[in-house]
Amino acid sequence: MSDAGERGKVYLVGSGPGDPEYLTVKARRLLREADVVLHDKLPGPNIIALIPEHARVDVGKRAHGERTPQSAINLAMVEHAREGKTVVRLKGGDPTVFARGGEEMTYLAEHGIPFEIVPGMTSAIAGPGVAGIPITHRDYASSVTIVTGHEDPTKDESAVDWETLAAAGGTIVVLMGVTRLPQYTQALIDAGMDPETPVAMVERATWPDQQVATGTLETIVEARDEVGITPPALTIIGGVAGIREDVRNSLEGNDD
Amino acid sequence: MSDAGERGKVYLVGSGPGDPEYLTVKARRLLREADVVLHDKLPGPNIIALIPEHARVDVGKRAHGERTPQSAINLAMVEHAREGKTVVRLKGGDPTVFARGGEEMTYLAEHGIPFEIVPGMTSAIAGPGVAGIPITHRDYASSVTIVTGHEDPTKDESAVDWETLAAAGGTIVVLMGVTRLPQYTQALIDAGMDPETPVAMVERATWPDQQVATGTLETIVEARDEVGITPPALTIIGGVAGIREDVRNSLEGNDD
Repeated sequence: MSDAGERGKVYLVGSGPGDPEYLTVKARRLLREADVVLHDKLPGPNIIALIPEHARVDVGKRAHGERTPQSAINLAMVEHAREGKTVVRLKGGDPTVFARGGEEMTYLAEHGIPFEIVPGMTSAIAGPGVAGIPITHRDYASSVTIVTGHEDPTKDESAVDWETLAAAGGTIVVLMGVTRLPQYTQALIDAGMDPETPVAMVERATWPDQQVATGTLETIVEARDEVGITPPALTIIGGVAGIREDVRNSLEGNDD
Repeated sequence: MSDAGERGKVYLVGSGPGDPEYLTVKARRLLREADVVLHDKLPGPNIIALIPEHARVDVGKRAHGERTPQSAINLAMVEHAREGKTVVRLKGGDPTVFARGGEEMTYLAEHGIPFEIVPGMTSAIAGPGVAGIPITHRDYASSVTIVTGHEDPTKDESAVDWETLAAAGGTIVVLMGVTRLPQYTQALIDAGMDPETPVAMVERATWPDQQVATGTLETIVEARDEVGITPPALTIIGGVAGIREDVRNSLEGNDD
């Protein structure tokens, strides 16, 4: 694909939630055609196996076990593109949902590198679906809000306004919210949400070892520990989370 | 695929935003393998062309030009499955994002029909991405809320609490919000949002005739009319919508 002359290009590509069948057709094509694919471990071994060996560059780890800093990844994208290469920067889920895609595209634009965003299935949408939970529903939720439970350590206060979220009345999907589950479920109850509000957690959505825990704002911490939910997992809060139990007898797929 | 014996199964499949390359690998496989695909016009002719002719059932129109009622679609899914068939119910975008997937899965479960949700790329995520807008960004938005601008005529008041949304401070993505744009941009300003807040609209995201309009809460109605944005389109409200102009010189793909 280097036949575009000396002008390289960077594709910021989402790999989806994990199952290689949830790659988009476009992402799968680009993985096979790119000259270089900068990836970390997040997409998973089955997806990384689709990349020709000569094109793989693991930017998730350095020799001494540290993560490659973002600045080095940015530099690598620009350098490869300037050599006229077709470069894929592969990211788990979607490249713009809590994944620094915004920072990477700004960096590329500042350096005059042509780029394209290739959206991927975010687990925030795919995870509830495969677990039998519609994130919107005429009877339960006319909006869905996606937040991260992982706090930015450089920020003084919680970036997420749980009080406002509790008032919004829509479905809440929390990414990276396993360890802080007790804090934000309590915050939502304190803000006036019904403690009986259904909650579900989906670990490793779409992977063969997917696990689901269900409960309420009051009981989900216990359910999380009983099932043994560990990161990566997402939390779905709202009436829609209760639908899973209604439909579970008919639910197929890689559901447990 | 009818070799599962007499036990049929229904797949509720999302077709993504429009470009057939944004089908997931799984959706594309199911379209080719299913015995019956119940579809309407939303996925678009290029995706419908991937379905073998013998399997296509258009439930978007009836003989007299009326839409097939939801109850008839529900019944068709159950009847085909009871004949032991592999049935795909194909929906634009994702089957659970403002698409009645929740009602269909409940109906299937009530009738004892095995089903699986096959999530698809919602335009709410894909649309901003292909237009150069990251829906989350550490500097601008630590949450994203997806709502519909299309009012349910059976409801007395607006289902969307624009005042709370204005207070949340995250990115807002409005699906089906072309005609009511003046109402909800004004509602957000009235609720205290900065009139200078960047806003972008993306019509027919990922299609060859994709169009984008940009402005602010105050100017987007005019920009919509200048560009000639018509449904289907989505609206992105928040600081991230301003990033498009910063990166536009480097942005490729089917961007205008």
